[in-house]
Amino acid sequence: MSERFYHPSPPHDGRARLEGDEARHLARVLRAKPGDGVTLFDGRGNAWTARVASVGRDVVDLDVGEALPANDPPRSSVTIAVALPKGDRQKWLVEKLAELGVEALVPLVTARGVAEATDSARARLERGVIEACKQCGRDRLMTIGAAATLPETIAAAASGTTILLADPAGEPLETPAAGAALVLVGPEGGFTPEEIAVATAAGARRVRLARHVLRIETAAIAAAARLA
Amino acid sequence: MSERFYHPSPPHDGRARLEGDEARHLARVLRAKPGDGVTLFDGRGNAWTARVASVGRDVVDLDVGEALPANDPPRSSVTIAVALPKGDRQKWLVEKLAELGVEALVPLVTARGVAEATDSARARLERGVIEACKQCGRDRLMTIGAAATLPETIAAAASGTTILLADPAGEPLETPAAGAALVLVGPEGGFTPEEIAVATAAGARRVRLARHVLRIETAAIAAAARLA
Repeated sequence: MSERFYHPSPPHDGRARLEGDEARHLARVLRAKPGDGVTLFDGRGNAWTARVASVGRDVVDLDVGEALPANDPPRSSVTIAVALPKGDRQKWLVEKLAELGVEALVPLVTARGVAEATDSARARLERGVIEACKQCGRDRLMTIGAAATLPETIAAAASGTTILLADPAGEPLETPAAGAALVLVGPEGGFTPEEIAVATAAGARRVRLARHVLRIETAAIAAAARLA
Repeated sequence: MSERFYHPSPPHDGRARLEGDEARHLARVLRAKPGDGVTLFDGRGNAWTARVASVGRDVVDLDVGEALPANDPPRSSVTIAVALPKGDRQKWLVEKLAELGVEALVPLVTARGVAEATDSARARLERGVIEACKQCGRDRLMTIGAAATLPETIAAAASGTTILLADPAGEPLETPAAGAALVLVGPEGGFTPEEIAVATAAGARRVRLARHVLRIETAAIAAAARLA
């Protein structure tokens, strides 16, 4: 697999221009030279072969070649709505969920949550998604949703979606659900009884993902590994 | 769940003494006072309630109370043999595998591996296991095995163990195996064809854990989430 670069708009007349982080990665980290081969992906499932045409100070121009075959479509559409953990754990969470094929991450606003999904936090998460997709060969970006409460998140789910709430006191998750799934992962202190009541009233099933108490990011990643 | 402390030997005459990291955590980080309640676990599946009797400079003496009911026995015994990733990813790997209930981690010696399981690396991993077990309520430590090659690792597996080799070109892992499982996870550059031949000749099944190329630690954690 050649090095992959994210270019959100389709190539125009067989050309594409990398700017910002992507140009710096190719020009400065990888010290690209005209003629070097790379892969371009648009984050919506399309990818192309390309060659470096010229390297500028902050831009790299590419000659775009043939379209590459599409990635496998997802087995199921999994959204993980999670009370964001702090610091490095957030970065890690996003990397792993993107690698595992999760379709969307929604930062969940909860009573006991500790990390806010500010605009800068969301921008950082989105950059993490791009990095992971470059690395793991994923052509369709994982979406970072707007921060939302439990009722908002559940209301936004398509009808027929299986809704699971990660809960150490729930039933073991024995059979992965087919089709669309929404997994709700609470903060370190857990969901409040009121939050659990709201979710179960809306049809969420309380499921236990392991025998021990999982950290936020471990629960989210374990659910992704089982369902995505 | 009260704060948990690791004390590898059984209490003697209703007393136990914490030293080293465990004493420092209780005395300095948590600023324990006589009478404070904690939980002790021995890393072999036993746990007790305890109260702080006295706090010294580098030791904390405890009065040990009743034995606590044993954790659920594992659903299956899962060993993850993995070519260690570098740096922080190693620390994450160990924390997550311990949380998810993996029985043993074996550092795998491979042709393309980059991180060596030196004594100091193994000691660091073992400390990581203790931290994770304190945090997630696990009373039996995950074992960190001695570094081993693929043939050594496979030869050490109990007969009847399901042997799986993580491989992006393998079959999807649809049905988690029941009983004992050994999962082989290669280095960033992958197992060599010779290594794959050795493992499959010994009965290993090549399985794909996700649609994309997973990093070492993601593959190991995904396998643990599916099997442990």
